[in-house]
Amino acid sequence: MPFLPDLPIPDGLIFSSGGGAEGAAFADTLFSLFILFLAAKIGEEVFRRINQPGVIGELLGGFIVGPFALGLAHVSITAEVFAELGVVILLFTVGLEVRIDDLVKVGPMAIAVGTIGFILPIIAGVGIGLAIGEEVLPAALIGLALAATSIGITSRVLAEMGVLDRAFSRVILGAAIVDDILALLAIGLLSGFAEGDLGIDTVLTLMAGLAFVGIGLALAPLGRRLPRKLFVWPRFADTPVVPVFIIMFAGALLAQFVGLAAIIGAFVVGLIIAETPVREEVEHGFRSLLGIFAPFFFAVTGANIDMSALIDPELLVIVLILAVMGVLTKLVGGIAGSWKLGKWNSVVVGVGMSPRGEVGIVVSALGLSLGLINREIYAVLLAAVILTTLVAPVMLQWTVPRAPRDERHPEEAGTGAA
Amino acid sequence: MPFLPDLPIPDGLIFSSGGGAEGAAFADTLFSLFILFLAAKIGEEVFRRINQPGVIGELLGGFIVGPFALGLAHVSITAEVFAELGVVILLFTVGLEVRIDDLVKVGPMAIAVGTIGFILPIIAGVGIGLAIGEEVLPAALIGLALAATSIGITSRVLAEMGVLDRAFSRVILGAAIVDDILALLAIGLLSGFAEGDLGIDTVLTLMAGLAFVGIGLALAPLGRRLPRKLFVWPRFADTPVVPVFIIMFAGALLAQFVGLAAIIGAFVVGLIIAETPVREEVEHGFRSLLGIFAPFFFAVTGANIDMSALIDPELLVIVLILAVMGVLTKLVGGIAGSWKLGKWNSVVVGVGMSPRGEVGIVVSALGLSLGLINREIYAVLLAAVILTTLVAPVMLQWTVPRAPRDERHPEEAGTGAA
Repeated sequence: MPFLPDLPIPDGLIFSSGGGAEGAAFADTLFSLFILFLAAKIGEEVFRRINQPGVIGELLGGFIVGPFALGLAHVSITAEVFAELGVVILLFTVGLEVRIDDLVKVGPMAIAVGTIGFILPIIAGVGIGLAIGEEVLPAALIGLALAATSIGITSRVLAEMGVLDRAFSRVILGAAIVDDILALLAIGLLSGFAEGDLGIDTVLTLMAGLAFVGIGLALAPLGRRLPRKLFVWPRFADTPVVPVFIIMFAGALLAQFVGLAAIIGAFVVGLIIAETPVREEVEHGFRSLLGIFAPFFFAVTGANIDMSALIDPELLVIVLILAVMGVLTKLVGGIAGSWKLGKWNSVVVGVGMSPRGEVGIVVSALGLSLGLINREIYAVLLAAVILTTLVAPVMLQWTVPRAPRDERHPEEAGTGAA
Repeated sequence: MPFLPDLPIPDGLIFSSGGGAEGAAFADTLFSLFILFLAAKIGEEVFRRINQPGVIGELLGGFIVGPFALGLAHVSITAEVFAELGVVILLFTVGLEVRIDDLVKVGPMAIAVGTIGFILPIIAGVGIGLAIGEEVLPAALIGLALAATSIGITSRVLAEMGVLDRAFSRVILGAAIVDDILALLAIGLLSGFAEGDLGIDTVLTLMAGLAFVGIGLALAPLGRRLPRKLFVWPRFADTPVVPVFIIMFAGALLAQFVGLAAIIGAFVVGLIIAETPVREEVEHGFRSLLGIFAPFFFAVTGANIDMSALIDPELLVIVLILAVMGVLTKLVGGIAGSWKLGKWNSVVVGVGMSPRGEVGIVVSALGLSLGLINREIYAVLLAAVILTTLVAPVMLQWTVPRAPRDERHPEEAGTGAA
């Protein structure tokens, strides 16, 4: 890249257009990005050809070239940024597919699924924590690490299967929002307890999070009144893609700023844009962006999988118990909260809520940094989180075809007409 | 991002989906990217509204938010990677617009423009270097820093003006390839001289560079025989966008590997894809990618502008002399090499070849690291390079409308029909 700072440059990189001071790191970063992308696509191809979810192939491709296997690619901050933008764009495009009215319709159900499916894993985690001899606070941390759903993988699988318009998909998406708000509250409470001061900060953070989602959902129906020219008034914009990209990016950053996940912000922006006349144009224009960025999310997720905790048989047992309880509790949450959708539909909701991700990792890292848990428990938690993530796509592929579309209840019937 | 390594995380970032070990750097990087993009687009908007080239607005937007002005955004390696991919995608899409036959037709002219426009700045630079009291080798370095054209800015302006199909555009693009090969040779020779061993490496590097371009240009016409299904055979590919992105990325990395600029590789891949039946689909699909990535190139270039050398009046004079001579020598190269295109058309070629960029920076950094030049001369060279870059878009906007399309000579006439 041009105009680099004035530092000596390493030999052999002097020709590189990415030369200069950070030349080596730059070239390595670019090469790793290419390898991660290529591995994800090859992995997807192989898995699709054996009729398995492409996303597992992408995860595995990333794992194989990543630092815990072949080591061909390293996961730089740049790769993480590509991955984050990938999942942000993914959730934004998922938001584009959802009509706000349909989401509001399943609101009570989503709240039930989200809440039950958040409390049960905490109880299970605390139980397991106490059973293996941890104190109350560490046990609570284990529970919390097991609580929060990560919607990225599920969204991708549902989109791949073409069932984002089904009621269970909307319940999952709504429940993911509820889940994220509860995580916001719980992490605030836990850090407050651990640091001995449960200040007004937690309350403020929670209120900011609720306000963000509330205002976003309230604004969405107003999108119908926005004219197309609002999105293409800038001279630089022939299409709404760049202006909407800016809005999406801003929404993701704002969500992150108030303490929510960036993807929740992108999803809410997607909901709003879905109501405007530019929806189809944006959906079309974002297809290439999704195709280029999203694979990084799955490849990087795969590349970061460190299964070393699974080598010790004793730890392996704890990992498996945590992972199984993690899936079971979300399954119960899904079934109990969305029973009205019918048996298999509610099972799909539970399965869809199973993958844990960034919040689980962040909570575990928080526990480690606060001294609540040691490195062993930390590794165990990571491995359990990863397992729930790997299992979900397979289970979704198995359960979704069993969930009938013709269940006789208003939500699912309503969808068919939409 | 999920699955981060097991390190403590900074307070306040625990909610961030980008949390974890590198949480702070990650959040900062993401925010800086947003600011750079936003600034580029606001800058472009302002400049378009006052009927000036949008690209200057993007550069200026980046400069204003960058570390040498307001400091709202910092230029991380991630931003450099986005910028590099931006200019790679830009040159790839430019390649899509060019037919290989048309490029070969202007081949001799491009070689003349590229060669004359490479030798003259070296002579001028050496002269100025000797005049300010430098030794031969440092003076040669100053000449070389002034020699190599950077095609990114010119491509963008020509595309913005809708004149990529004109003969002068093709001459510029062809001459840029010649220019890059000469730079490859010259840098090899200079480092050889400076390090006292002029080995076989230089010859090998040059041959690899020539082979890359030669094979690429020879392959391009074969593109016509490639069926569409070759680009969409993977199950993951509904459209050719993702496979072609992989090929473009590989071409850019390969060019960099053999010592050429990454953008030359992307341009050559663009030439090849332009001959295939998927050209239009790819062009369409890459429009959003171009819209999202390319602004980073200009914003980052702007953000890295450090004009501190211009504060000292004595240095300022040298900067201005170097910049003026830099533009004049390219102008003479353009006029002398492409005189057959007619007066104004050949002036446009010269103006289009004026912007210097990454190679100038890299050569200057090389000179600094080899101890050939001191920090003052280094800063002077950077400032001169930047000036040639800033001046070109304005001059292009002034000269292109004066270059008549109806010049009576086979190349330009042939273009009208294409």
